[in-house]
Amino acid sequence: MRKSDIPPAPKGFLFSAVEAAIKKPGRKDLALIFSETETVMAGAFTTNNVKAAPVRACMKQIASGAGRAIIVNSGNANACTGRQGLQDARSICRTAAQRLGVSASLVYPCSTGVIGSPLPMDRILPAADTLARRIGSATLLDVARAIMTTDTFPKMVHRKVRVNGRTGSIAGICKGAGMIAPRMATMLCFMMTDVAVDGRALSALVKDSVRHSFNRITIDGDMSTNDTVLAMANGLCGNKPLTRTSAGFAEFQEAFNRLMYDLSLLVVKDGEGATKLIEVLVKGARTTADAEKAAFAVANSSLVKTAMYGNDANWGRIMCSLGYSGVRFSEEKTDIYFNRVKVVKAGLTTNRDAEATAELRSNEVRITVDLHAGKASAQVLTCDFTEDYIRINAEYRS
Amino acid sequence: MRKSDIPPAPKGFLFSAVEAAIKKPGRKDLALIFSETETVMAGAFTTNNVKAAPVRACMKQIASGAGRAIIVNSGNANACTGRQGLQDARSICRTAAQRLGVSASLVYPCSTGVIGSPLPMDRILPAADTLARRIGSATLLDVARAIMTTDTFPKMVHRKVRVNGRTGSIAGICKGAGMIAPRMATMLCFMMTDVAVDGRALSALVKDSVRHSFNRITIDGDMSTNDTVLAMANGLCGNKPLTRTSAGFAEFQEAFNRLMYDLSLLVVKDGEGATKLIEVLVKGARTTADAEKAAFAVANSSLVKTAMYGNDANWGRIMCSLGYSGVRFSEEKTDIYFNRVKVVKAGLTTNRDAEATAELRSNEVRITVDLHAGKASAQVLTCDFTEDYIRINAEYRS
Repeated sequence: MRKSDIPPAPKGFLFSAVEAAIKKPGRKDLALIFSETETVMAGAFTTNNVKAAPVRACMKQIASGAGRAIIVNSGNANACTGRQGLQDARSICRTAAQRLGVSASLVYPCSTGVIGSPLPMDRILPAADTLARRIGSATLLDVARAIMTTDTFPKMVHRKVRVNGRTGSIAGICKGAGMIAPRMATMLCFMMTDVAVDGRALSALVKDSVRHSFNRITIDGDMSTNDTVLAMANGLCGNKPLTRTSAGFAEFQEAFNRLMYDLSLLVVKDGEGATKLIEVLVKGARTTADAEKAAFAVANSSLVKTAMYGNDANWGRIMCSLGYSGVRFSEEKTDIYFNRVKVVKAGLTTNRDAEATAELRSNEVRITVDLHAGKASAQVLTCDFTEDYIRINAEYRS
Repeated sequence: MRKSDIPPAPKGFLFSAVEAAIKKPGRKDLALIFSETETVMAGAFTTNNVKAAPVRACMKQIASGAGRAIIVNSGNANACTGRQGLQDARSICRTAAQRLGVSASLVYPCSTGVIGSPLPMDRILPAADTLARRIGSATLLDVARAIMTTDTFPKMVHRKVRVNGRTGSIAGICKGAGMIAPRMATMLCFMMTDVAVDGRALSALVKDSVRHSFNRITIDGDMSTNDTVLAMANGLCGNKPLTRTSAGFAEFQEAFNRLMYDLSLLVVKDGEGATKLIEVLVKGARTTADAEKAAFAVANSSLVKTAMYGNDANWGRIMCSLGYSGVRFSEEKTDIYFNRVKVVKAGLTTNRDAEATAELRSNEVRITVDLHAGKASAQVLTCDFTEDYIRINAEYRS
């Protein structure tokens, strides 16, 4: 990546990244995001009953609505590590906080990687100290790279925003390429802005954004122990803090939502082993909940996803997954399209499979299902299912 | 297979199989099971909202509790084929019934194969006539072969049973290697016995057996449109018909359950692309429903199944799937074993991953989870997830 491709950081955000040799030596695996001033902080976390230690720590800290830094490692999830895991997460924050000269409660810990192994604290603590000492020496790209696990590329977004006559900016990074499932954030996503946003507004914004981005993508139906979205707003843009009723809030919200959506799109594009992005749009459902359920049933079906990989317009598998989705609909009223090719009309084949198959030879495919049962709709993003997914996950720890 | 391996048919059951060139020429794809006398008939069917035409036909016919024959084709599921599909299923039964000299309502239609194409009736109707004419010319093995789709071997079971001093027998065949999921029978399973069984008893028996066999296996989490279990009891053994309170019923039930279980085991062993049979046993759950939910979450996890394929004792993925199963439990109390190797004690690693990995290098692995939350347990069978699953399903229709 050329230097010019590195998104500029919002005002007052500094970065560093170091090598703590957590999984294997030779790559940066510990990173720090730091704001020169205290930030408003909001978050969304995994709904998995088994939550990693750093997630539990963040959930406690976020109650204050304030933050200053995020310290994050890859290579080890610090999940299923008991009381020791929680102590480790706190020690790391304390070490960095001390060196940064801030309160440890304002430093949020995040981890991603293998579940069930204790963190190598003998290497991480000195590295955390170095990390804090070197703050400002790295770019957002370095951090985006340091948090990668099976990701094949770093994931970053950036946008300038006009708020009350001032120009601010929002930047975001995330990582995630597998174990991505509905009712979840991605594995890790960090949003930063210099726009001043009121705490309640930021919190509502994050929850709303997650609903329409990371909660609408699925790769393998598995749900992680570590998924975390954290958003920091340090207000250095100098605007009057946005509340949900502010004049500029809607525009800011739109920009924020768009960036979160773009990040979630990058995650699906980087789906483990994926060769295709697949949009599943279910319309004509009785309720939005029905539309989501139906779309997720299609998007999670191994048989649909392997058919997409094989460029096979096998709509029977789509009808089949709609059938077990638990949604009330009539097969006899249902239409199915691959891109613009209508392959099923009122539950029956239109004999256009050959045409549809040609459509599938693209790296982006839209499956549209019209249930003709109501007016609600929902869209879910997924990817195809390939031998490489198997390979990546069979060999993950070896 | 040697002739001596062909299981003997229960008294009065005759078979035939012919080639109707439904999918591709060169293999038998239409088969008939016929009883010389009227049978008591019971069944269990897919709970998918989208049901194939033959399933809808069978569900209607089974209300009579009586049968005489099953006519079954592979290569085409006759699903999502609308009113025409239902008419086709009935025409096939009528054609065979006429030639056999029995009522069409006693002939049950079944289909398996690709969804959404109309049956090639111009080839099937003459073949159905030939099939009926040749009744008695084939063995149970021929029928088991004729119903195969992605199966790599025919699936048959047989057992002699003693009932009230008489010797009867039960035989069964089934097909299924993918699209096998919970809350389902397999794709097709036909049980035959010459033991006389009362209609209500046989019906209860089938439902109970399915619960502990085909409803406790999962391969890809997909649920078929065609899954059907049919059981025929013609009473030619001459015993007084068994009711649920008969002296010999418990023994008969045990034999019947065992055979159904064995058939479901064969399906998992033949899981598309599978190299390993995996038993997931969840014990110490609060309720049986919880135990089942937890066991299915583990057994359906793509990440667990790829780890098993990679001989990776990655118990974190098991804990993770328990976490999103929706079951209430404490991570801190949970133990996990691979075979007899305890890899997790009270939520923490025992550092025995190397030992556990050695256990995984076998073609049968048992994962045991003890939630220490209650006394209920459940076992689910599944298989590992390999590149071949992808290949088979990406190329299914080509």
